[in-house]
Formats: sequence, C-alpha cells, structure tokens
Amino acid sequence: MQFNRSFVLYVLGLMLLMEGLFMFIAGMVALYYGEYDFQFHLISTLISAIAGGLLAWFNRSVPNNVGKREGYVVVASVWVVFSLFGSLPFYLSGAIPSFTDSFFETMSGFSTTGATILDDIEALPHGLLFWRSLTQWLGGMGIIVFSMTVLPILGLGATQLYVAEMPGPMPDKLHPRIHETAKRLWAIYVAFTVIQVALLVAGGMPAFDAVCHALTTMATGGYSTKQNSMAHFDSPYLQYIMIIFMFIGGMNFALSYQLLRGRFSKVFKNEELKSYFFAAIGIGVTIGLILFFTSHTPAFEQAMRHGLFQTVSIMTTTGYYTDDYQQWFPFLGVMLFMLMFMGASAGSTSGGITIARVVLLVKNSINELKRLSHPNAIIPVRFNGKSVSQSIITNVLAFIVIYMLIVGLCTIIMSAMGYDLETSLGAVVASIGNVGPGTGIFGPTASFSALSDIGKWFLSLLMLMGRLELFTVILIFTPSFWRQ
Amino acid sequence: MQFNRSFVLYVLGLMLLMEGLFMFIAGMVALYYGEYDFQFHLISTLISAIAGGLLAWFNRSVPNNVGKREGYVVVASVWVVFSLFGSLPFYLSGAIPSFTDSFFETMSGFSTTGATILDDIEALPHGLLFWRSLTQWLGGMGIIVFSMTVLPILGLGATQLYVAEMPGPMPDKLHPRIHETAKRLWAIYVAFTVIQVALLVAGGMPAFDAVCHALTTMATGGYSTKQNSMAHFDSPYLQYIMIIFMFIGGMNFALSYQLLRGRFSKVFKNEELKSYFFAAIGIGVTIGLILFFTSHTPAFEQAMRHGLFQTVSIMTTTGYYTDDYQQWFPFLGVMLFMLMFMGASAGSTSGGITIARVVLLVKNSINELKRLSHPNAIIPVRFNGKSVSQSIITNVLAFIVIYMLIVGLCTIIMSAMGYDLETSLGAVVASIGNVGPGTGIFGPTASFSALSDIGKWFLSLLMLMGRLELFTVILIFTPSFWRQ
Repeated sequence: MQFNRSFVLYVLGLMLLMEGLFMFIAGMVALYYGEYDFQFHLISTLISAIAGGLLAWFNRSVPNNVGKREGYVVVASVWVVFSLFGSLPFYLSGAIPSFTDSFFETMSGFSTTGATILDDIEALPHGLLFWRSLTQWLGGMGIIVFSMTVLPILGLGATQLYVAEMPGPMPDKLHPRIHETAKRLWAIYVAFTVIQVALLVAGGMPAFDAVCHALTTMATGGYSTKQNSMAHFDSPYLQYIMIIFMFIGGMNFALSYQLLRGRFSKVFKNEELKSYFFAAIGIGVTIGLILFFTSHTPAFEQAMRHGLFQTVSIMTTTGYYTDDYQQWFPFLGVMLFMLMFMGASAGSTSGGITIARVVLLVKNSINELKRLSHPNAIIPVRFNGKSVSQSIITNVLAFIVIYMLIVGLCTIIMSAMGYDLETSLGAVVASIGNVGPGTGIFGPTASFSALSDIGKWFLSLLMLMGRLELFTVILIFTPSFWRQ
Repeated sequence: MQFNRSFVLYVLGLMLLMEGLFMFIAGMVALYYGEYDFQFHLISTLISAIAGGLLAWFNRSVPNNVGKREGYVVVASVWVVFSLFGSLPFYLSGAIPSFTDSFFETMSGFSTTGATILDDIEALPHGLLFWRSLTQWLGGMGIIVFSMTVLPILGLGATQLYVAEMPGPMPDKLHPRIHETAKRLWAIYVAFTVIQVALLVAGGMPAFDAVCHALTTMATGGYSTKQNSMAHFDSPYLQYIMIIFMFIGGMNFALSYQLLRGRFSKVFKNEELKSYFFAAIGIGVTIGLILFFTSHTPAFEQAMRHGLFQTVSIMTTTGYYTDDYQQWFPFLGVMLFMLMFMGASAGSTSGGITIARVVLLVKNSINELKRLSHPNAIIPVRFNGKSVSQSIITNVLAFIVIYMLIVGLCTIIMSAMGYDLETSLGAVVASIGNVGPGTGIFGPTASFSALSDIGKWFLSLLMLMGRLELFTVILIFTPSFWRQ
C-alpha cells in the first residue's frame, strides 16, 4: 500500500487550525490583561490558521486508504508541528528571543515535560503564561482526544492512532467506539481541571494562577506561573490539593472513568493502581519521616507534606516542587531520581516506563527464577487476573531495555557537551521521562537556559521520544517501516 | 528429591583442602623473601586444611543423588568459603587489621573484581602480594576448572555446576566430556599466563611483578603490585602487552581454544568476538584521538595507548589503569562508565552483562521494531548463524532488566550510606560488574578504605552476585528453589 502523504498533511492542517483556535484564546487572555503580547498571539493565530487551512484545502480530496503507517506518522509529526507553530507567540513577542529556546519551551509544554529555559518566569505577561500552561494541558491528553474526535468524523483510520498513542502496554478498552471514548476521556479531563480550579481558588490561590496550575497538573506537566513553583504558595491546603490532583493525573484515565461511574470493585482490584497508590504513600511517608527525624524539616506535618509532594510530583513526572530536594540528604535525591525512570500509570498523562511495565517486569523476573529451578513448569505471568501472553512480555522487556539503552547512549552524548555524569544522566532521564527538572546543574530550582542550542534540540527530541513511547518515533526512522 | 547437604559439605571440604595448598605456595614465596608473613601463611594453610579435611571426612559416605540444586549451592558457597578462609593470611598477619577489610579484599580477589581497601599496596610483603594476585587467578577461571576436574572424579553431577557456572547465555560445548574440557581450559589458562610472564620479563618488568600481573591479567582482575597500578610501569611495550593479554582474558575461552587448534574460520566468524574486537578498537582509538586533539596527552602514541589501555581495561572489567580517567574530559569518563555495564565476552573471566547478551538485545530490539510495522512476519533473532529460541531471548532480556533493577535498588542503598549519586552508582556498577574502581569518590586512583563496614559487606555481596551471574545467588534465596 502506497504511503498516503495527502492524508497526513490533511490531518495536520486540521490540527493546525485547532491550534490556532487555542492561540486565539490565549490572545483573549492577553487582551483582558491589556498587555503587550496581545497582537503577537493574533499574528501567531493567523499564521497557524492560514498554514493549517492551506494544508487541509490542498489535500482535501484524500483517498480512503489509510493504514497504521499514516497513523504513526501523524502522531509523531503532530507534536513537532504543534511545537513549531506553538513557539511563535514566545518568539514573535520577543519574550523568548531565541527560536531554539522558544521551541524547547513549547516542546517541553506539549510533551508535558515541564523543563524550562526561563530564568524569570514571572516576567512573562499573562497571555504567554496562560499559553505556556495550555500547551501542557493540550499535550497531556488533548492531542490524543483531538485525534480521536476529529479523525472518526472523517471516517478515517483512527484506531491506528489510538493504538500508537495510547500509553502503556494494554489499553483497557473503555468503549468499543473510539469517538465516544474520546469524548468521555475529554469530559473527565475537563471535569477534573474545573474541580481543581475551584478547589485552588477556594484555598485562596488567585484565579489566574489556579487556572494555569490546574491546566498543568492534570497534564502532569509541571509548568508553574511562579519562579519558585509551588514553594511560592506556602499553604498546606493548596499543596495537598496539588498532591491529590497530581496523583489523579498519574492514574489510568480509563480507571478514573470507571471510578466516576461508581464501578469501585473493578478499580480497587486493579494491580497497577494498587502498586501506584502504595508506592506513592510508602515512599512519600518514608521521605517525610527521614526529613523529620534528620531535623531537616523540624515541623512534622511540613516534613510529611514535602515528602509526599516531591514523591508524587516526580512519580507522576509532573515536576513541581515545594522544596529543593537537591539540598536534602543525598539518599532522598537518589530515590527520587530512580522514580523518574518508573513514572506513574499507563494510560495517564505521566511519562517514564510506567508502573504497569515495572510490575510486569518484576513478576516476570520472579517467574524466570522459578523456571530455573523447575524448568518444565509452565508458569504464566498474571496481571489483573489475566495471564499475559509471551509476546507482550517480550515487548515490555524490550521496551525497558531499549529505554535503558537510549538513556545510556544519550548520557554519553550529553556528557560530550561537557557535563558531568550526574548532570548528563539527570537531564536525559528527566527529558525522556517527561519529568522536567533533572539532577546536578539542571536541578529543580535551575533552568535549562545555560544549555547549548544543540543540547536544547537534543533534549527536545528526547522529550518527543519519551512522550510517544519511544517506538512511535524510532519506528519512523527504520527502513523496514517504509518498505511495502 | 531431598537436598543433599552432605554432598555440598563434602565438596566444600575438598575445595578447602585445595585452597590450603595454594596458601602453602604463597607461604613458600614469603619464605623465599624471608618476610614476617611466612608463619601466618602456614597457620592459614593449617586452618584451611584441617577444616577442609574434617568437612570432607565426616561427609565422605555421600549418597549419589545430586541434582541442580546442590550444584548451585556448591558454586555460590565455594566463593564465600574461599573468601572467608582466604582472608586469613591478611588478617592473621595484621597486614589488614580489620576482618571486614580482609574479607572485602579477598572476595574482591576471588570474584576478580579488583576493588581494594589498601592505601599503600607496596607496604605489603611479597607473600601477601602474591596471595592477593593468586586469589584473582584462582577466582577467574580456576574455581570453574577445579569444580570440573575434582567433581567428575567423584562421579558426581558436575554438568549442573558447569551450567550454573559457565558465564554467558550459550556456552559453546568444547568437548562432550566435562573433565576433558576442564583440563583443556586449565591448560590454555596456564599457557597464556606463562607466556605473559615471559613477555613482561622480556620487557624489563621484575620477575615478581611480572608473575603477579600475569596472574591478575588472565583473570581480568586488576590487582597490581604497585600503588599506581600500570602507570608505575611507564613502558609502552609493557603496557601494550597488558592490553593484548587483557583482551585475551576478555575472550571466550572456548574460542581461544579453537584459535590455538588452528580453527581460524570458526573463530573469525564468531559474532561476539567481532563485536568485542571492533568495539574495543573503535572506542579505544576514539578516546585516544580525543586525548590527543584536546591536547590532554600531547604525544600521539601515548594518547592512543592510554585510550586503548583504559578502554580494554574497563571493557574486560580488569580495572588496571595507566592514567586517571577521572581527570579526562568528562565525556570520556562517562563513556568508560557505560562500558562497565557491558563487560566483555561470555565464557571469559570478565564480568558485566557480556557482549553476547548486548548483541542479542540489540538484534531483538531491531526485530521488535520490524514486528511493529509487519505484525504477521516471523523474524527470528540469529546469532552466529543460528536462530535463537524465544525462551533464550526472554531469559537474556530478563537478565538485563534484573541487572538494571538491582543496580537501581543498590544505588539507593549505597546513597543511604551518605554518598552522592555518582559515587553510589559507580561503586555499585563497578562491584556488580566485577570491574573494581568506580567513579566519584571511589575512582581508579582511590581505594575503598573510607567505606563503612556495612558498605564493604554490601559491595562484597554485589561482587559475588555479579560473578555468579546474579541468578545463581538470587535463586538460593527464593522459596521455590527449596520446594520439592
């Protein structure tokens, strides 16, 4: 089957039109505050809309032969195209003078990474702060949902996109019809965001900050409107709200949907959710106790809150902070660093290897040991009560191994730019895991502004790869993908 | 089948008798130099011989029902028992006043790791220096071979030991009869050691140093008789000889045997050897060129030599050095660090994941990608011209993933002892990979003397696990291993 380039361009065109619409909303925010960036939002909107319109128009008579390959290419290129056009408001307004920086910031947004090149976040006008948060919100779940609502209308192969996009090894089918599924996920996503805004405002957070933080929490993105992230809002209530919603952001959205429908038994039996919950509580409390007993944080409640906040923030690959964990006892930093590899649930907006894969891996390892002592026994790996096929296991193991291999190679490349092991490894793991802040020089309280241009493009690529579960991006660069 | 404890104790007894014999040889070295440690070698010999004799005597009427489990337990406990008794000469003589330090040094020897707690190696008397080198030589290949020559005489299940002990995913059968195989490997090992001694002496290295270095090169152990390791012997000839023999030490001994028998075509077609050779040359030359062009090492020949030496030393997990790579451009240190994970060939004395596994992993990853675009195609992974079964692939992937998991968990544990990420990670990777020197505080020119006692026992366990390919040690601690 011939590769259907027109289809890809057509879809990208429609998506760009939609991005223009969201840029326009950011422009309205700028208009409301009467700040200098207003006109640049409008120009960016126009550029995106015209480019999108032309693309869609000239490829409108699209033949219906669409397969998996087109799906993969659309998914991977949407993120790049969105980031290219999405960086226009930052670049054109001069708020971020370098295009590389603008692109990095936008890709970090759409990939829900949250790494920033800004050294003075609060200097940005409201419109741009809002747009920055919006990129994460759109990136976290939006693009999946958009792909699933727009494409079925066209009657085109959206299932392939769903398979390519849906994070995690085994997407639980929410509903047989993709279009309906997408609408429901979308509704949950919006609902959680609105509830969080309300709760934050109720706790005294200014409405603008509440909206921006809610947008970036549900996406487990981590862009804050404040230079000191959530340490700026030194209110236990607000920080606990953030912990809860980051946790929700790291849950499988299919489970959140079941939860809202009242199907508690199904939800509470879910192995990944149980592991996620107990890991977050266990590690968070442990860190809190250590902070308290080493007298780093003398107030008990505050120590527990800092422990839980940082644990959930890193596990869900959000990247907010309430305290600089690089100033903690090194053990705690190392523990948080290891969590960056894992991430939270499959089917959530978080990055990393995902807990589902880690659980499968641990179970398979135990089985391998059993097989060594009882070579003839057939012992299947079970997950959520079902036995998992060998091909899924192999795929999961291969994913983890490739993940590690890429981390290793990319750490070497980063260190070739002159950084030490800790900084190189931290930047790579935080980028590919869509966490944001890393370790070493690029820690939670620092920005990536000092990184070279090449380094920024390199990390942008890693964010994209991590967001699209590696294979989607790697696949496009393999010759066998393009062979008939 | 009942677990045959008598058999295990009987074999351990015989092994201890043999260890006593080697201690006696070290005592003869001390006698020759007329140094204070002579009597302590004799006492250690007596203790080991009596303990071994009693163990063997009281368990001599051993029933013949021996299975895999006994094999695993013998293999794992031999290393511990050897290290316990082998540390006596250091401890009793007072040369290493702490028993923990003595055990660490001896386990580091028998596991061919090469990490040391000595801050003044040259202060040791000759007898102890020789014993220290001998532990590595025995550890590297000896214990395998002894297990295979002693046990078949008893007519007992040695094949199980061979399977448990032989490193790497697929041991190429040298010869159907284990006993013969062992004798031949032994002969090759001795022959290479003797040739290396001759070549080192011919280059002007004092005979004692030449013997000790040859013992630790063939074992890819890395214990030197000099505080500054091979930087002490600033002779290009000597350093090139070391490079060549470290490389041989990292080759599959089955291949070395084929090579000596003149079966060149089989050897040169071997995929692992090809990857090993080109990786060593490629990385070594790259590092050499960078050292030269960054003017770190202004002399071209010297730069290439340092590049090749450090690359081969780390790849083969030997751990000698001619230059402190922590003073190099950080990129080079990071590259060498990544090599610690890989190690050299399966079926050699080197540690790490082994190149065979890495090659399989890369091939399987490529296949996974092909499968994504062509889900119905059956594409087997081929290695040395044969297609590899899915169960071997799963086992290799599980091994690598468990390796990484253990590295991650143990890095957290090390950091809980107060070390930063780089030092913790480096110490763990260098111990489990049987490399020796790590990164950070415990770099190539430093010792592990400053580590706490708990830390030393912890790293000793990691050395043992790494040496016995993880599974052998982990298996013994699983309940299903002990179930009937």
